[in-house]
Amino acid sequence: MDEVGYVSGQTRLFGIVGHPIAQVRSPEMVTAELVGRGLNAVLVPLHVLPQDFEPCLRSLKRLQNLDGLIFTTPFKQTALALADELTVQAREVGAINALACREDGTWIGDIFDGLGCVEAFRRRDYPLAGRAIMLIGAGGAGRAIAIAIAHVGPRALRIFDIEPERARRLADEVAAIDPTIEVSVGEPSVEGIDILLNASPVGMLSDPRMPIEATRLPAELIVFDAIVKPEPTKLLALARESGCRTVMGREMMRGQISKIVDFYQLQNGKRLTAG
Amino acid sequence: MDEVGYVSGQTRLFGIVGHPIAQVRSPEMVTAELVGRGLNAVLVPLHVLPQDFEPCLRSLKRLQNLDGLIFTTPFKQTALALADELTVQAREVGAINALACREDGTWIGDIFDGLGCVEAFRRRDYPLAGRAIMLIGAGGAGRAIAIAIAHVGPRALRIFDIEPERARRLADEVAAIDPTIEVSVGEPSVEGIDILLNASPVGMLSDPRMPIEATRLPAELIVFDAIVKPEPTKLLALARESGCRTVMGREMMRGQISKIVDFYQLQNGKRLTAG
Repeated sequence: MDEVGYVSGQTRLFGIVGHPIAQVRSPEMVTAELVGRGLNAVLVPLHVLPQDFEPCLRSLKRLQNLDGLIFTTPFKQTALALADELTVQAREVGAINALACREDGTWIGDIFDGLGCVEAFRRRDYPLAGRAIMLIGAGGAGRAIAIAIAHVGPRALRIFDIEPERARRLADEVAAIDPTIEVSVGEPSVEGIDILLNASPVGMLSDPRMPIEATRLPAELIVFDAIVKPEPTKLLALARESGCRTVMGREMMRGQISKIVDFYQLQNGKRLTAG
Repeated sequence: MDEVGYVSGQTRLFGIVGHPIAQVRSPEMVTAELVGRGLNAVLVPLHVLPQDFEPCLRSLKRLQNLDGLIFTTPFKQTALALADELTVQAREVGAINALACREDGTWIGDIFDGLGCVEAFRRRDYPLAGRAIMLIGAGGAGRAIAIAIAHVGPRALRIFDIEPERARRLADEVAAIDPTIEVSVGEPSVEGIDILLNASPVGMLSDPRMPIEATRLPAELIVFDAIVKPEPTKLLALARESGCRTVMGREMMRGQISKIVDFYQLQNGKRLTAG
């Protein structure tokens, strides 16, 4: 093979910025979506150390063929400052996971994590409305998920975070969006819960821990884990052993990917062309 | 297609830095060479404006999964300052076109342009030794080519550059490497010349000019053009019409690509693994 078709001098660049980076699935999934739409574009992993974030990102935004970025742990909140404009959702969540360069050179930020999770449940036909939900993790992904869910009418939402203040703050925001939701803050538990959501990094890659202490889960529970590697996570493996229905991080990603590429195509306009 | 195999969270990154960038062939050619060697790596175009070069490159070098860079017009000389160490050739030429990150995090620079040109002539079995050569362009590529050729014993080398001082300086350096070469500086001409080399950007992309004023060339002339787009260039098209033997920029690139990837594999060591 002398040449390969997928990258050339005209290729438009997208990147996912994170630390660590090896676990991310966006490079293959977003690139497949871009290429599948006939675009000459690729999304590559960009491993940025937290201490390098500000100067590195300031410079990356100056690359003339970079049209968009995705942010993952631990940068979803820090990345907010990179946007010249934010969507309503991004302002509500206080974090972004996608940044697009518009034709005038300004950057707009949005967040798709929460919508991706809600979309994954919709595709499975597992209703969130009227259900009692336990959410573990109130960081970037957790906040996005809680706020998206607050808009679809759950009966109750219990939130846990290793930083109790962060959980409390998110609970208040959910209550402000829909005061009819029974919002509470508490330790991870499946007591009285219909749906268990993990949006914490516990269990990622070779982390042997579980986000909840359990050796068995109630079979009627629906369990979701935002983590995409390993697949399944230890939590999802236990859920399957226990007979629970599960929703994988990859399903949340699939819902997101399509919406993120829509966002890029809309914002980048003419620069992002078929090729 | 849901996933594509060539880019993932573990993919090691390489980039070609230039302005403009659309004409470069390294993304497809180097990526094919990396993938062909079983490496999980990709080389992407990085379009950097000259005024952004210093801060952009300082930041790019901090990306933890970036293992190497290639430099093209107009950065081959500026890029010298990015290297912690230079090879003998790079010091001789005063420019680099490849930078590799070593396992200790330091960067080593080398230049492969000239060697690529010499290698292209060797593969074609067109001797440079004993021949009278006209070189147009004494910029980054021209310097590298002249110095590589100075080591293979041409009879004469005439050099032209739009900046006469640049041509004279290069002529002096060639004479210092091999005082038996008849070195001169003069306008582009094929008078008494066996081999015509274009290493100037004249004729690149939609530039309608020719690096030499001619409507026909002597059939016994061998003509080389370092430009890879368009292919053939106007100069090479005229050479073919005139019955000349030709060597294309792509052939110089092929010679270089293999050597550059050797260099990356040697310098990056364990970080660049099969994947």
